[in-house]
Amino acid sequence: MGKSYNIAVIPGDGTGPEVVAEGVKVLNAAAARFGFNLDYTDYSLGGEHYKATGEILNDDTIDRLKKADAIFLGAIGHPDVKPGILEKGLLLKLRFTCDQYINLRPVRLYEGVYTPLKDKTPADIDFTVVRENTEGLYAGAGGFLKYGTPDEVAIQESINTRKGVERCIRFAFEYTRNRNKRKKLTLCGKTNVLTFAFDLWERTFHDVAKEYPDIETDYAHVDAICMWMVKNPEWFDVIVTDNMFGDIITDLGAMIQGGMGVAAGGNINPEGVSMFEPIGGSAPKYTGLGVINPIAAIMAGSLMLEHLGESAAADAIEQAAMTAIKKDLKSVEARKMGMSTAEVGARVAAYVAQS
Amino acid sequence: MGKSYNIAVIPGDGTGPEVVAEGVKVLNAAAARFGFNLDYTDYSLGGEHYKATGEILNDDTIDRLKKADAIFLGAIGHPDVKPGILEKGLLLKLRFTCDQYINLRPVRLYEGVYTPLKDKTPADIDFTVVRENTEGLYAGAGGFLKYGTPDEVAIQESINTRKGVERCIRFAFEYTRNRNKRKKLTLCGKTNVLTFAFDLWERTFHDVAKEYPDIETDYAHVDAICMWMVKNPEWFDVIVTDNMFGDIITDLGAMIQGGMGVAAGGNINPEGVSMFEPIGGSAPKYTGLGVINPIAAIMAGSLMLEHLGESAAADAIEQAAMTAIKKDLKSVEARKMGMSTAEVGARVAAYVAQS
Ligand SMILES: CC(C)[C@H](C(=O)O)[C@@H](O)C(=O)O
Ligand SMILES: CC(C)[C@H](C(=O)O)[C@@H](O)C(=O)O
Repeated sequence: MGKSYNIAVIPGDGTGPEVVAEGVKVLNAAAARFGFNLDYTDYSLGGEHYKATGEILNDDTIDRLKKADAIFLGAIGHPDVKPGILEKGLLLKLRFTCDQYINLRPVRLYEGVYTPLKDKTPADIDFTVVRENTEGLYAGAGGFLKYGTPDEVAIQESINTRKGVERCIRFAFEYTRNRNKRKKLTLCGKTNVLTFAFDLWERTFHDVAKEYPDIETDYAHVDAICMWMVKNPEWFDVIVTDNMFGDIITDLGAMIQGGMGVAAGGNINPEGVSMFEPIGGSAPKYTGLGVINPIAAIMAGSLMLEHLGESAAADAIEQAAMTAIKKDLKSVEARKMGMSTAEVGARVAAYVAQS
Repeated sequence: MGKSYNIAVIPGDGTGPEVVAEGVKVLNAAAARFGFNLDYTDYSLGGEHYKATGEILNDDTIDRLKKADAIFLGAIGHPDVKPGILEKGLLLKLRFTCDQYINLRPVRLYEGVYTPLKDKTPADIDFTVVRENTEGLYAGAGGFLKYGTPDEVAIQESINTRKGVERCIRFAFEYTRNRNKRKKLTLCGKTNVLTFAFDLWERTFHDVAKEYPDIETDYAHVDAICMWMVKNPEWFDVIVTDNMFGDIITDLGAMIQGGMGVAAGGNINPEGVSMFEPIGGSAPKYTGLGVINPIAAIMAGSLMLEHLGESAAADAIEQAAMTAIKKDLKSVEARKMGMSTAEVGARVAAYVAQS
């Protein structure tokens, strides 16, 4: 028997539990096929839990989560809870307290998936965004002056540290080297306007680049990056950027790769506990209908196994999901799959078992 | 004889002078056809001027520009000048000192123009972005702590005032009402993370909305807006947002409407002098080759006449450009037009004269 991993599972809100169930189904198939063991501990966190208990995430829970080998997250977000509460109190708090300083978002168009872009094939849309995940505008720093008056001023601060920027950029260089595709890393910033924040980013990028002479480097403003993602996604191999720009371009990336049904990401602390999630949100209107696509959660499981070192199993899951998309699913969009959430999970699990 | 307008012309760098020349050609045709007068004063500003004189923009020049009826700008940006210098010292400085608090970007797909999006027609891509143009992350506020050390911190501040946000939102509501299409205004923000800046934006939006019961309002996070612009651009009528998000989504908008060859914008101070520009940049590599598309500059001229109250002439220019795109240009992309920059200008001017 192989290794054993403790997986903390946070099904969360809305359709989160449904897709997590399918993710676990597929993870179990992979564990059986590749000879390792997954022990799950469920954590009841999210909007329902908050409404019932008034609590979002306590220190004891954080301590226990930190001891897991990885966290598998469904979705956070509840229609009855004011925007910001759960995002800041749970999702961002986990990213911050677990120091998950990388948000890793592979953007890959799988065969058979509809992209809204003309003339683009799977060969054209295949890059990864490395987003800084603990700093920048997400610091939560800022405040109000003369709140509620005609003279009000609201300030929001982007805080960037050399340490935080450097470890992110270094991760991106390593990732680009190991990805072993075009070996090109593009810094996405706004050096001509954000002359403090991106001056630090650019200097650091330049410094670290010296250690990676095998990696081609490039720079583009965030506005140009958005244009090229739509017009020439084939130009990109790996993109590294700050938290806010990363938030924007990863969602744009999710759309060009086919949408929320397929897009997954990892919140990574290479020295601590990492968290993997489908990026689609809780989709309240689809809750309980069995119409949501679990492929994104399944892909999050694949990213998690890759991170845990179970590369063969991770690849098998990705291949199995690709097969299901190509052979079985009518569409990767919710409601249009031609089969139920559970059927998709079962199909992918079966392909993994046969792999 | 009709009215007379003093137009300050800043041809600027790279291909700026070439496209401005065609813009002026078409403006003159419109003036002749619709019976008004345009007096141009050229201002030699930009990278070349800076390199030759060490000066970017002095107070005397600003005073003279402020007395014009409008400013017609080509492009700013020079390969030999460090990024940020000309942008901050000239373009942003003009926007700020002239208090051009609105950046207005119509996003419209013209018939015959290639959009990178599948299944979208001119009926689907027809919205306007109202971008705040004097505040937010563009304030230039921030600084460094322990610069150049491993402990460095770089801070960039987004400063938002009730006054600045309110006048922008009010402009957007008025614009939506007068645009008279779907009468829907969408606020683009990030309320769940930028809980200071967009709290002010959201409260202000809500307050002002009460005065416009005929306008449907909507809110979306910037990441979602980017996704929908690519997947469902037909959902939008008018979008209002802050300076930084506006910068990003207007360039994304430019791409889906066919790129830099057609996209124009206005920097508007309803009570002062406004400035109109093609948004393509100085495109150094195409300078002097006669291969750049002047349609964007021509459209900037149309926006300028609209702003000056010459609506019939503005419409005639837009129609003439549409005709040229449909009948004469092989493509709206630089180098691929099938005719020269000057020929495109001449063709559009001829259509205006015949209109
Ligand atoms: C839910 C929200 C706080 C979050 C973010 O902005 O980071 C999400 O959009 C994401 O990208 O994971
Ligand atoms: C050149 C640059 C400073 C400018 C901006 O960021 O506003 C440009 O991108 C724009 O959108 O007009």
